[in-house]
Amino acid sequence: MFDAGEGAQMAYLRSGLGWNKPMKIFVTHLHGDHCIGILGLLQTMSLKKRSQGLEIYGPAGIDEFLAANIRILNFGVSFPVIINPVSDGVVADERSYVVSACRAAHSVEAYSYVFEERPRPGRFNRERAEELQVPRGEMWGRLQAGQHVTVDGRVVKPGDVLGPSRRGKKIGVSGDTRPTGPLQEFFQGCDYLVFDSTFMDDMGDKALKTFHSTAKEAATLARDAGVSNLVLTHFSARYDDAQALVDEAGAVHGSVVAAEDLLEIEIE
Amino acid sequence: MFDAGEGAQMAYLRSGLGWNKPMKIFVTHLHGDHCIGILGLLQTMSLKKRSQGLEIYGPAGIDEFLAANIRILNFGVSFPVIINPVSDGVVADERSYVVSACRAAHSVEAYSYVFEERPRPGRFNRERAEELQVPRGEMWGRLQAGQHVTVDGRVVKPGDVLGPSRRGKKIGVSGDTRPTGPLQEFFQGCDYLVFDSTFMDDMGDKALKTFHSTAKEAATLARDAGVSNLVLTHFSARYDDAQALVDEAGAVHGSVVAAEDLLEIEIE
Repeated sequence: MFDAGEGAQMAYLRSGLGWNKPMKIFVTHLHGDHCIGILGLLQTMSLKKRSQGLEIYGPAGIDEFLAANIRILNFGVSFPVIINPVSDGVVADERSYVVSACRAAHSVEAYSYVFEERPRPGRFNRERAEELQVPRGEMWGRLQAGQHVTVDGRVVKPGDVLGPSRRGKKIGVSGDTRPTGPLQEFFQGCDYLVFDSTFMDDMGDKALKTFHSTAKEAATLARDAGVSNLVLTHFSARYDDAQALVDEAGAVHGSVVAAEDLLEIEIE
Repeated sequence: MFDAGEGAQMAYLRSGLGWNKPMKIFVTHLHGDHCIGILGLLQTMSLKKRSQGLEIYGPAGIDEFLAANIRILNFGVSFPVIINPVSDGVVADERSYVVSACRAAHSVEAYSYVFEERPRPGRFNRERAEELQVPRGEMWGRLQAGQHVTVDGRVVKPGDVLGPSRRGKKIGVSGDTRPTGPLQEFFQGCDYLVFDSTFMDDMGDKALKTFHSTAKEAATLARDAGVSNLVLTHFSARYDDAQALVDEAGAVHGSVVAAEDLLEIEIE
């Protein structure tokens, strides 16, 4: 989960995901609309008897925010909460994915995040393995793990039965920020980028003063970073709907949608 | 406002009330589902440039909860916030109403509240004032304020032109609590009482252990306190809807409804 604003537990409940799932929460910055929802999530997960640990990542101060509220609000948390203050670079290095942080440009210490899957092995061609008379079981496993096997004196190589390895997907989340050169580099080649789009171009001064971005700025950064798909978010309440912001960004970038509550995007 | 759980600002926005209204918030106890919403309210009110002061009442610790979060979350609050820790007795003594607190019986320090309007002067009978040839303006004002006036040597008394004074309405809010004798006394004669009804009677043990009430206990206290109308609230998530709880309470008390988001009740 990237950020947890007020009501995050209600949205999480409606998503139908379980309360005891493996989960990490990455907080971009310590403004209430990006982190207050963690408190309700912790409370409800405890009520639901979550047992699995939960790792929470965020800027310096995230530890004090959680510790102070857990103490003052008399939480009994039913599971381990591991709090990790972040800085630039890799913040979570897991078997199937890596999450990295890059300092953003907001009114308080803030980070953008990139979630990147590790490359996945190519698809195993069962028919081809059977044609080559490789016995099922251990030998199939070795081939899938990239090892050679010997069948009746013949050598079978992984490349004989595996398709090309598949690139992992790369997803970026800006949090609240001005567009910057380092962020453009950080988000290079993202399949999807969720970016601050608080204002439209005619309010560029206000975006500058409040350390946010316009829809046009979001689209320009996404285009120049070679991002495939852009998701606009964090719209000012002055806009009744997001269509005008999507149109503004769409003039610069070919694939733009507006984030909304419970929006699901299938990433192929 | 009595308590502000997560999402309070969204409900407040949907209610259509303004962001700069005179307002006090009374918090029953420092559990997240009763006070976290204050933080989002303060942030959004500031964004909306509220200027009017806001008084917040609650148990000891409410000051630390607000001060710590305002500091950690880098709030810039645009208006005065006056924090008042409460104890038993009158906590807010205003021109047209009084709010009192009574210690409740929950797992942490908790208070129930009663909001009581002051008696209102009787209705002014314009036709009668005209019959008695009292000139409009200052003299009508004096009569409404309870003073005698003299018209062409005749004395006109307030009782000549005012109906009987009207009793102020009395509304109680329990917060999370077991039913107790002092609370039954405190809520005596309420026109409306909003009371903890977390469980049904068959889960009485669980209500006892977790310092909550059953629907039957809420109805029994309301009946014995001479409460006119009972509003059940704080239902356990195990109940898909509140009808069974309303039915259980309805067997004991003649006027029972279930609270729900944005429910409006006109109090005549």
